[in-house]
Amino acid sequence: MEGVEFGHSLKLEKQLNFIIELDKVKNIFRKTKLFDSNRFENDAEHSWTVSIMAVLLKEYSNFEVDIEKVIIMLLLHDVVEIDAGDTFLYSAGRNEAAEREEKAANRIFGLLETEQKELFISLWKEFEERETNEAKFASVFDRLEPLIQNYLTEGYTWKKHNITYEMVLKKNKHIKDGSEEIWNFVLLLLQKAVEKGYLQKE
Amino acid sequence: MEGVEFGHSLKLEKQLNFIIELDKVKNIFRKTKLFDSNRFENDAEHSWTVSIMAVLLKEYSNFEVDIEKVIIMLLLHDVVEIDAGDTFLYSAGRNEAAEREEKAANRIFGLLETEQKELFISLWKEFEERETNEAKFASVFDRLEPLIQNYLTEGYTWKKHNITYEMVLKKNKHIKDGSEEIWNFVLLLLQKAVEKGYLQKE
Repeated sequence: MEGVEFGHSLKLEKQLNFIIELDKVKNIFRKTKLFDSNRFENDAEHSWTVSIMAVLLKEYSNFEVDIEKVIIMLLLHDVVEIDAGDTFLYSAGRNEAAEREEKAANRIFGLLETEQKELFISLWKEFEERETNEAKFASVFDRLEPLIQNYLTEGYTWKKHNITYEMVLKKNKHIKDGSEEIWNFVLLLLQKAVEKGYLQKE
Repeated sequence: MEGVEFGHSLKLEKQLNFIIELDKVKNIFRKTKLFDSNRFENDAEHSWTVSIMAVLLKEYSNFEVDIEKVIIMLLLHDVVEIDAGDTFLYSAGRNEAAEREEKAANRIFGLLETEQKELFISLWKEFEERETNEAKFASVFDRLEPLIQNYLTEGYTWKKHNITYEMVLKKNKHIKDGSEEIWNFVLLLLQKAVEKGYLQKE
């Protein structure tokens, strides 16, 4: 794909070509369907929804957070999938994916000049490591959205991949580290999902 | 579409049902195609791209801006199109659209409790009015993205709807109010578009 290179301002043009590169996540599809189940969701749409969730639900954070940082993390957290692809949360290949994703982060953010490159790589790593308050809170929404998507699509992805209630608990329990209140909601949602037959216990 | 209503926390469940409602913009398609031209872009994807643009390009703002506010405006500016539909920038129906969009803002943000409802309606109006620094800067990206999309798709939307260079200048010149630097880039992009035959002068 052609970019924009007019020799006007090298820095601005690099930044715009980075934006053009990011557009590829609009063709990276996730394993979960939209809330109304009419099709799979792509990474750009997912990132938009979880960013709004963080703005709207910041009152439920376990601690004070820099919400601007949370939003930037969420806007950018999945762009590594341009190179690394979408790896299913419950798949055995999650560890190898981490290596592919780091390489991707270096290539993609490396399209920018040093200062922004380093800033975004560092925010991306911070999100992945889930150690800071901002990363813990951002991670709540990365996990909450697919749980609600599964509930509203009658367990579509859970059923398709034989995901059990226990597996969902194990892979999502760190929601509690970011928001006790939202984790309590998730426990109720999962209980309802079991009652309705969307999710099976082992 | 079913929502989430478990009687756990009325406020949280209202907020999540608002998020579920917003998902409908993923099926509202714009008049412009993705940078790689393989299909039309939807409103959620557009909002994601322009939000990242604001983060990445904030150094080019004509003035100091509260970037968190800019991002929130951009994340939410198009959700009114759930009810009002996408109105083409150059169409004669832009004035009637404003009325439909205001009604939509009241209904959609009205799904939230008073405090957040009023906050988001006020941010949405601020964006539409383009009087504050944040609204002026946010508006730069709402206009910049389709200009680059048109350039990279060899003038797809311009040609299809007989849009001239003069019309583009007139409808986009307020980019300069938010960023002189980006407006200078746009002038160059439009000049190249004319040279390449993507856009006609009157």
